[in-house]
Amino acid sequence: LDIDPDKMPKHLPRTMDGMLAFNKAIIEATSDLCVAYKPNLAFYERFGSEGWQLLEDTIKLIPKECMVIADAKRGDIGNTSKYYAEAIFNHLQADAITVAPYMGEDSVSPFLAFKNKWTIVLGLTSNKGASDFQFHGEPDLYKTVLQKCQQWGSPEQLMFVIGATRPEMFKQVRAIAPDHFLLVPGVGAQGGSLTDVAKYGMNKDVG
Amino acid sequence: LDIDPDKMPKHLPRTMDGMLAFNKAIIEATSDLCVAYKPNLAFYERFGSEGWQLLEDTIKLIPKECMVIADAKRGDIGNTSKYYAEAIFNHLQADAITVAPYMGEDSVSPFLAFKNKWTIVLGLTSNKGASDFQFHGEPDLYKTVLQKCQQWGSPEQLMFVIGATRPEMFKQVRAIAPDHFLLVPGVGAQGGSLTDVAKYGMNKDVG
Repeated sequence: LDIDPDKMPKHLPRTMDGMLAFNKAIIEATSDLCVAYKPNLAFYERFGSEGWQLLEDTIKLIPKECMVIADAKRGDIGNTSKYYAEAIFNHLQADAITVAPYMGEDSVSPFLAFKNKWTIVLGLTSNKGASDFQFHGEPDLYKTVLQKCQQWGSPEQLMFVIGATRPEMFKQVRAIAPDHFLLVPGVGAQGGSLTDVAKYGMNKDVG
Repeated sequence: LDIDPDKMPKHLPRTMDGMLAFNKAIIEATSDLCVAYKPNLAFYERFGSEGWQLLEDTIKLIPKECMVIADAKRGDIGNTSKYYAEAIFNHLQADAITVAPYMGEDSVSPFLAFKNKWTIVLGLTSNKGASDFQFHGEPDLYKTVLQKCQQWGSPEQLMFVIGATRPEMFKQVRAIAPDHFLLVPGVGAQGGSLTDVAKYGMNKDVG
């Protein structure tokens, strides 16, 4: 649900109401097929408080049985991460949030403190810039992120972002994190292949 | 400007209007002494769209000659970072934003594309969790962040966050980044000392 007025049908007005109608049409057309919806917060924040209102209204349209993943890439010192967690989990009533790991344990653990919610930490991302820092050091930084974060949260509350654009890495990822769910962006437009990901990316729950 | 209803004077109502009045009083009492105001977005987002409205209204109260630093710790793939930059620089009319470096160049450069704005990248943060990943590898990850980011932006548009809680590191920081402004959190409550920071933290513009 990355709302973009430029991609809307011509008949809908380029207003907050028009965008809400567009999101509503998408949700109604797909909710019997989807397990989750992932609004990206940047696409709403560019419209400021009105955009946040649109986000709140959009999330209310998503059926309760579907998961809401707030793609927010947040992360800050402890008390600040706590407020981000309140914003996403309590106020927006989302089920999951994406979190950036750079600031370490006290930036991630406030999200993990929420019951029945999911924290999805960036591991190996799908973009070109992933190679700037995520392979830094020995072992690669992203591997250390996967390892350390597992000490902070269980596979029932913690997932990792692993981009589909590097399918050859999934074997190494699964060696470190065999059980955790993975959020795998990059299939399609960014060039990732579902078949390649599935070859090494599954956990033990898949036969 | 990390708004917290629990720290407000008793006579102000715990409403958005009350919080705006509190921020207004702080700004009016300090604007002849301050070079910058730094609202932390988490403290507003916990109230959702109403909190974003409060943030918008608060920034409008800040005199034009003062800098507005949106402490947002954002960072995502290219087109998403572009929308975060639009949210902060265009919509909120802030002068600067804090950015997390984990996703690399294409997550940072969309902020640097804005003229007469500042991008403040997390280098070495002031919190305990900084030791989890920021010293990873050889050289330390944070040093590689300082080095690489300098290839993406000039000292006239790029700053770094370096926490005051590790004053002994400023000598090494200044060896890598002699000219860039530094945003130095952690003086006071977190235990950092201004004197210790100033010993090694200044750039060449200070006599």
